[in-house]
Amino acid sequence: MNYFPSALENLIDKFATLPGIGRKTAQRLAFFMISLSDEEAISFADAITEAKENVECCTVCLNLTDGELCVVCRDTRRDPSIVCVVPDPKGVLAIERAHEYGGRYHVLHGVISPMNNIGPDDIKIKELIARVSDGSVEEVIMATNPDTEGETTARYISRLLHPFGVKVTRLAYGIPVGGSLEFVDDATLMRALEGRLEM
Amino acid sequence: MNYFPSALENLIDKFATLPGIGRKTAQRLAFFMISLSDEEAISFADAITEAKENVECCTVCLNLTDGELCVVCRDTRRDPSIVCVVPDPKGVLAIERAHEYGGRYHVLHGVISPMNNIGPDDIKIKELIARVSDGSVEEVIMATNPDTEGETTARYISRLLHPFGVKVTRLAYGIPVGGSLEFVDDATLMRALEGRLEM
Repeated sequence: MNYFPSALENLIDKFATLPGIGRKTAQRLAFFMISLSDEEAISFADAITEAKENVECCTVCLNLTDGELCVVCRDTRRDPSIVCVVPDPKGVLAIERAHEYGGRYHVLHGVISPMNNIGPDDIKIKELIARVSDGSVEEVIMATNPDTEGETTARYISRLLHPFGVKVTRLAYGIPVGGSLEFVDDATLMRALEGRLEM
Repeated sequence: MNYFPSALENLIDKFATLPGIGRKTAQRLAFFMISLSDEEAISFADAITEAKENVECCTVCLNLTDGELCVVCRDTRRDPSIVCVVPDPKGVLAIERAHEYGGRYHVLHGVISPMNNIGPDDIKIKELIARVSDGSVEEVIMATNPDTEGETTARYISRLLHPFGVKVTRLAYGIPVGGSLEFVDDATLMRALEGRLEM
């Protein structure tokens, strides 16, 4: 038996479909939502439809944008000869936070993951090859996540890019700044030793 | 600088206003939302506006409903002479889960909390007194939360109900079923001893 009105049950169901949101949290969120004023609730609903309507992929790098080009590709000061390959738009945000990178991006929208049935054709690799094949790109920096799937994707793409004679690099592995040696895992320490730099 | 389209930033901001949802989670939810199909996203937005439009308070017990009366008050088999006072609609759900209670409810929509500037007039106490004053109620069961605010609210209401000669009871305190004695806190054990029953 439903002790809540069906519209409320429906809203709880919707919230429960969100990633990381369980039944209890969904209930809490739905109750919060109906406790909002009419304007606030409607503006929340509008925010969803507007984001869905207005957000598209940049025609060059596939980063999210509300125009034809994303903020990075619109910025003429950014070097178009260096392309940093990230798995998703959050990767762009992460790299930008370092305030170090002055090139462009390419957003893959996923990584190769045979376990989840995601092959090379399911992510935006073709688009990257097309960008590189016109000759304007000199360096491609692979910035996929440092896990098996990210590694696999980076190696796969680097092999595909080989014939174009473009320089392919990847982010350095090593101990994280501010970390403590005793908490660094074996694999990371091994990579840090392999990649040691002269002082 | 915003690396996401403003409609997406706006949606992230909205999600971040939800209780228990931080900035990172809000980002994750907003990304999930724009990854949905158009129909799914629109139906999510509609669920919010519909819940907001259709969900009202039962005219008798103030439980949530989409009609004039809630499911409990509509059910003629439920005894109207017993009223269980709960702090919010989730309280109704909790008591109903026990499949033990056959009376009606009264939803306070809050508890007295001087710390949060919530006084007796800010919750639905007047409505309870009005229900009791017409003489049809024989017992009022206080089912507020077992914390200071819930206790205070229950005591306050019980004093107000005294002149009407109605029986006022409250949920028993004691050790939770299935719990282990060693993990029961002192206050609960004290209450369990005070309320011990003959076998």
